[in-house]
Amino acid sequence: MKSVVIAKPGELVVAERDQPQPAAGEVLVKVQYASICGSDVHIWHGHNPFARYPRVIGHEFFGVITATGEGVETARIGERVAVDPVVSCGHCYPCSVGRPNVCSELQVIGVHRDGGFSEYAAVPAQNAYVVPDAIPDKLASLIEPFTIAANICAFLQPQPGDIALIFGAGPMGLTAIQALKGVYNLSKVIVADRLPERLKMAQENGADVVLDNSEIPLAAQLEGIRPTLIIDAACHPGILAEAVALASPAARIGLLGFSGEPCTVTQQSLTSKELSLFTSRLNSHRFPQVIDWMEKKLIQPEKLVTHYLPLADVETAMTLFEKDPRSCCKVILTVN
Amino acid sequence: MKSVVIAKPGELVVAERDQPQPAAGEVLVKVQYASICGSDVHIWHGHNPFARYPRVIGHEFFGVITATGEGVETARIGERVAVDPVVSCGHCYPCSVGRPNVCSELQVIGVHRDGGFSEYAAVPAQNAYVVPDAIPDKLASLIEPFTIAANICAFLQPQPGDIALIFGAGPMGLTAIQALKGVYNLSKVIVADRLPERLKMAQENGADVVLDNSEIPLAAQLEGIRPTLIIDAACHPGILAEAVALASPAARIGLLGFSGEPCTVTQQSLTSKELSLFTSRLNSHRFPQVIDWMEKKLIQPEKLVTHYLPLADVETAMTLFEKDPRSCCKVILTVN
Repeated sequence: MKSVVIAKPGELVVAERDQPQPAAGEVLVKVQYASICGSDVHIWHGHNPFARYPRVIGHEFFGVITATGEGVETARIGERVAVDPVVSCGHCYPCSVGRPNVCSELQVIGVHRDGGFSEYAAVPAQNAYVVPDAIPDKLASLIEPFTIAANICAFLQPQPGDIALIFGAGPMGLTAIQALKGVYNLSKVIVADRLPERLKMAQENGADVVLDNSEIPLAAQLEGIRPTLIIDAACHPGILAEAVALASPAARIGLLGFSGEPCTVTQQSLTSKELSLFTSRLNSHRFPQVIDWMEKKLIQPEKLVTHYLPLADVETAMTLFEKDPRSCCKVILTVN
Repeated sequence: MKSVVIAKPGELVVAERDQPQPAAGEVLVKVQYASICGSDVHIWHGHNPFARYPRVIGHEFFGVITATGEGVETARIGERVAVDPVVSCGHCYPCSVGRPNVCSELQVIGVHRDGGFSEYAAVPAQNAYVVPDAIPDKLASLIEPFTIAANICAFLQPQPGDIALIFGAGPMGLTAIQALKGVYNLSKVIVADRLPERLKMAQENGADVVLDNSEIPLAAQLEGIRPTLIIDAACHPGILAEAVALASPAARIGLLGFSGEPCTVTQQSLTSKELSLFTSRLNSHRFPQVIDWMEKKLIQPEKLVTHYLPLADVETAMTLFEKDPRSCCKVILTVN
């Protein structure tokens, strides 16, 4: 079978590999569609601290179960499935409180173990979620990126009366807009980005107000509006202090970034407004929730997709994703 | 009547003042006991950014209603009451979401308006909570400091299985220990402080483990124990980064500090463990909750009290509170 392998940092190849056998408790998924995420690019370039090489990347994927390992009912063969990349031990403290995404023995499919940019992938049976017929094959790989929005929203508990401010109109920002508008029914979602093309996408994805903060600071553009819910989906370490300054008293701030650079804020600026800060990583059992959102058409994954390309063109696809944020948002690889 | 007035920063006097008349919606409280808090000392020294001078200080107090203003039933005369210092507008965003403590027009009794280190205080009727007979007069001023613990705990949602770490065994740390042990039934509460006398108090207030971090860093003393719930009740800006490093994945961290000094942390250290940070200021309608705790004897306010002194000795009392943390914890002024 063909697999996209990062042999070592910087070296991406489409390799011929043996088809994996599903181990006990696993299913074999014949992958049909897989979408590209920033973290795939980071693994390619050696910028993901968790990745081990060589690695078959890809953690957003959809396919059909074609075989089952020991202990898994063969009746599952033929199921259309989306795969949750979070593989957890089930017994550590984070697992015991419903947070498998920070399991002490966390294995992320496509990061710590081989992923879905491949004709076949063997994954734990419990990570393969049945996709209802209402969700078309070619959009089902986008369940995973929406779980990122679902996960941070589970912390932030958005309310219809919130005034939301989202930093960054990349894929994470756009899924957050869709969730806040379509699922949580916020009347006001403001989005800031430095690229006009991205701001146009933000509008198409439901943003009520878009602000270009490439030159004029947001404080000057918000005209006294105090956001009550802020999501940093741009993930620059300097954003937190700006978010804290702009926030309403009693606001919640969500952080999705992984920057190792120091980030400075005073406790007075946090405590005087009694702000809460939530960080969010991957997702904790949120596939059923997002599948439900998608089935009920509360969210429109098709609005994120700008390109479909064959698996063989993965390097072109990843380069496009990385280098051309003005024209490119989600790129989906057609695999089988 | 006699009142403790901070005439201007640094100038504390016991002054003779006219007895206030309760305005519409207010009650007049004949104060019986009032306890000293760090913020009273800060106002005295000019270190509280919110205080206006001259000011009658004191926001932890108990007394009896002796008169009522227009619109307040005279039947309230004679009630034994503890006074919530948070006076809010009731209609701004924070008020609308149950957070009067960060009201956009916040008035704190004893900070923004005259307080309870006085023979009489006029306060909004709704801020005067009836104290049940089970709570003795001489401990009822301590309801307020326990609301600080109740407020941060409402964010942190402590669970019996949590391993808690509290930085600082001053009054805020001690009330937090009592709440975590007596109300939330945690089996393990670890407390760190630099003074052995304070650590002894922590033990007397219910701490399971006490650690002196004056010389050996906590990381070396915790022997791999990863706290799942951390409260910074020492309020030094350097503690956050240490707390983040020590925390278990999926932990919650509570901050009570108001330092204006920069505090530095990387987002990677937060997000990789998916930590949540909650700040807490004053209290949001938590008097009924703490009165219930005290009535049911889930907490023991008497364990905090080291001194009772007459109102006339307020300067001695405040100096003792400020300068002698080894022998002094809560000091209660006897007023009438």
